[in-house]
Amino acid sequence: MSAYPDGAIRRAAVIGAGVIGAGWVARLVDCGVDVAVADPDSGAAARVQATVEAAEAARRSLGLPAPLRPGTWTLAPGIAAAAAGAELIVEAVPERLDIKHAALAEADGANPTALIASSTSGFRPTALQAGLSAPGRLIVGHPFVPVYLLPLVEVVGGEATDPAAIERAMALYRTLGMAPLHVRREIDAFIADRLLEAVWREALWLVHDDIATTAEIDEAIRLGFGLRWAQMGLFETYRIGGGARGMRHFIAQFAPALAWPWTKLTDVPALDDALVERIAAQSDAQSGALTAGELARLRDDNLVGILEALSATGQGAGAVVAADRAAREAEAVPDARAAPLVTIRRRVPRAWCDYNGHMNESRYGQLFSDAADAAMRAVGADAGYVARGLSYFTVELHTRFLAEAHAGAALRVTSQVLAGAGKRLHLFHRIEETDGGTLHATGEQMLVHVSLQTRRACDPAPDVVARVAALAAAHAGLPRPEGTGRAVGQPR
Amino acid sequence: MSAYPDGAIRRAAVIGAGVIGAGWVARLVDCGVDVAVADPDSGAAARVQATVEAAEAARRSLGLPAPLRPGTWTLAPGIAAAAAGAELIVEAVPERLDIKHAALAEADGANPTALIASSTSGFRPTALQAGLSAPGRLIVGHPFVPVYLLPLVEVVGGEATDPAAIERAMALYRTLGMAPLHVRREIDAFIADRLLEAVWREALWLVHDDIATTAEIDEAIRLGFGLRWAQMGLFETYRIGGGARGMRHFIAQFAPALAWPWTKLTDVPALDDALVERIAAQSDAQSGALTAGELARLRDDNLVGILEALSATGQGAGAVVAADRAAREAEAVPDARAAPLVTIRRRVPRAWCDYNGHMNESRYGQLFSDAADAAMRAVGADAGYVARGLSYFTVELHTRFLAEAHAGAALRVTSQVLAGAGKRLHLFHRIEETDGGTLHATGEQMLVHVSLQTRRACDPAPDVVARVAALAAAHAGLPRPEGTGRAVGQPR
Repeated sequence: MSAYPDGAIRRAAVIGAGVIGAGWVARLVDCGVDVAVADPDSGAAARVQATVEAAEAARRSLGLPAPLRPGTWTLAPGIAAAAAGAELIVEAVPERLDIKHAALAEADGANPTALIASSTSGFRPTALQAGLSAPGRLIVGHPFVPVYLLPLVEVVGGEATDPAAIERAMALYRTLGMAPLHVRREIDAFIADRLLEAVWREALWLVHDDIATTAEIDEAIRLGFGLRWAQMGLFETYRIGGGARGMRHFIAQFAPALAWPWTKLTDVPALDDALVERIAAQSDAQSGALTAGELARLRDDNLVGILEALSATGQGAGAVVAADRAAREAEAVPDARAAPLVTIRRRVPRAWCDYNGHMNESRYGQLFSDAADAAMRAVGADAGYVARGLSYFTVELHTRFLAEAHAGAALRVTSQVLAGAGKRLHLFHRIEETDGGTLHATGEQMLVHVSLQTRRACDPAPDVVARVAALAAAHAGLPRPEGTGRAVGQPR
Repeated sequence: MSAYPDGAIRRAAVIGAGVIGAGWVARLVDCGVDVAVADPDSGAAARVQATVEAAEAARRSLGLPAPLRPGTWTLAPGIAAAAAGAELIVEAVPERLDIKHAALAEADGANPTALIASSTSGFRPTALQAGLSAPGRLIVGHPFVPVYLLPLVEVVGGEATDPAAIERAMALYRTLGMAPLHVRREIDAFIADRLLEAVWREALWLVHDDIATTAEIDEAIRLGFGLRWAQMGLFETYRIGGGARGMRHFIAQFAPALAWPWTKLTDVPALDDALVERIAAQSDAQSGALTAGELARLRDDNLVGILEALSATGQGAGAVVAADRAAREAEAVPDARAAPLVTIRRRVPRAWCDYNGHMNESRYGQLFSDAADAAMRAVGADAGYVARGLSYFTVELHTRFLAEAHAGAALRVTSQVLAGAGKRLHLFHRIEETDGGTLHATGEQMLVHVSLQTRRACDPAPDVVARVAALAAAHAGLPRPEGTGRAVGQPR
């Protein structure tokens, strides 16, 4: 296991490029991993490419910096070719045991050492590892669609699984910005799909008995408890319901309902043609105005907004995203020799756009704020510096809005130090298309160095003083940007 | 029913002030309804007051303007006293049929005409209306905690329910900014709690069998499918999983799993002392570091962030919130005689605060942007005007950050017209404490009137020209604000 000191890998194979497999490719590539894909379907390459692009758009919209070295993906001529040389083999073929066994056997034969991770949502790893030459390295790593945005991956070992393989998988998934959940005891469908299966059965009954349509069931979920579950789970939510008396009180209050016949889950609805047709027709009526691709974009836009909101409160998936973003930002400190610094690269999320059909003006301020943070990291005023009780506060900002930006636009911010002596740091930012095209806005910003204890101005620490001075000196030769020293309404 | 042309009411009774009842009071009061509360518990008043305050904080953080005339709440000496004179009677007593019958009978006797809405999560309305003198007016209106933030309310009629009562309830809930879902066929536990009950049973088994702890189950929910369900439901999510081939393909792919023994729901776990103790201890370990009140605040902070993100993409609960906000804003157009206009009253959401422990600088820009929108509404450049293809774009903004603002702070923005001739609109905003205390920031903003078709400057429509001129004239006599015409870094 010494080849994986921190869990990071460089080469992976993905066997099967459906929605799950393509999602894995997209996440891996965006984490700097080169991926060989095996899928005989003629549409596989197009599907992977579309997913990689969707992931890039969503993850840049979420403010996750691109990896320093993005991974690549290639279509391999077969499973053995894809698996050879990989450090991780992801199995994502259809949920049929015979198909999975065949794929795993071929991968096993071609690569005797890689970690093998099945994406199955239900089969036990013990059933999957039967017949492998090296079954100890097989685990289940069960992700959730969209794989490139949702952090959860359930990690499950089988009877033959080497405990070291579990640890290796947990570390590896963390390097992919995920939150691995070790399912300690092997059961069919693990944890999440046990819950999902229960809901799915009950929902089928509701449609079967004509209690509710698919659209009504979806509304009952997303306008109520679905919102709760995006940020706390079942037990923590109910604990609040118990008030000051907590969980025991909650259970005492609601336990009787358990004995009531409030579920039809004692039976499985027959998914006959009539029921399938009813569900499909209701789903068409509900969602048919949009293609699957359009729905997926809508879902991604929403998830990006939700994840961004949660990353600000630091809860649940937001904590995972915030940690991933911080790690990537720490890695990608702007090059202080470059002039001006490239401080931000980000796509415009849908949630940033307003009734005028363009990025709301307040988001320009957000980009300037994030750019200032990146400039601060470049001079050593990073998270560790804040932890020392020192920081910069913005005291003044002048923004010129020069051209509209639309949802999905790939923007970058460049930042130039105009002055950096003493307590003050005077920056000039430009928001422009990533290719250096349209200039969307400029921001002239004055920051003052502060003590976070006294909340008052103070001198920066010597290391920051030195780095600010060096950067200011490096930028001193740059032309003074057009638009500095300008007051609102002043003629150009 | 003629008393309810648009569904709005002025007086309500809430019977039972637990978590649900107190939540109803908070939502009603914040929608301008006066509420009489009946609850014999000595802690009821404190609980209601705390909930009303939490709701006020959360709803102002969400950017929902306060009602023009906030409702009041009072503790009534009993059910009959509370019910007398109410237009709506909300029943929210414990989930025991005998207790509910007693409460409903007393309310029924005291008020022969009000709509009666039970908050039960499981009992059929037919069972509840038995014995009432006027059973036709009883419905179930099942809300979701926190009632003051989540939009869903399931509306269910019983055998004796008058169809007009259903319509009246649907209209009434819409005036409360909710999304009523009419459950067309009466079943135990309706739609949402059928699904919740299924998950709850399965989760109990997982804990019972020591497959997972409460914390692990919660993570499995909130890091994966919970995020999906905050914005799309079960069927629409799975439809995407079916790719271009849609729902039929999805079902074909996953139907076999239905027949597999992936659920233990064929049986009910015995909630004996040992299991209750295990759940409670695991829940303590998971969440015990925070009180129920602290957890509720955390939940509200998260929900505010999620709802705000979804209101920007216009999906699900976000669409409901956006419509509610727009309706309240349209009602609360700033008084154009007042000088300067009070354009925004809002609390600082937790999600707006950054690593420096205060409102991030970008949110000052958001307040200025929202203030400019409100000023535009005051001169007739509202949503209808945008629909006519005309709007204002900001071209320049100068911000002075004068004092920190912290999470929960109640802020207001005042906006003064400095000039408004021709295509240009020159505004000056102040962000200050609601009581007119600390000045947190000023923003000097220049907007240009545009055609949304050509995206170029053009003259405003005559009605807007006239209203801008009138407002500019009204503000002409105000002192020129300190800080105008200022460039970044210029000495004070």
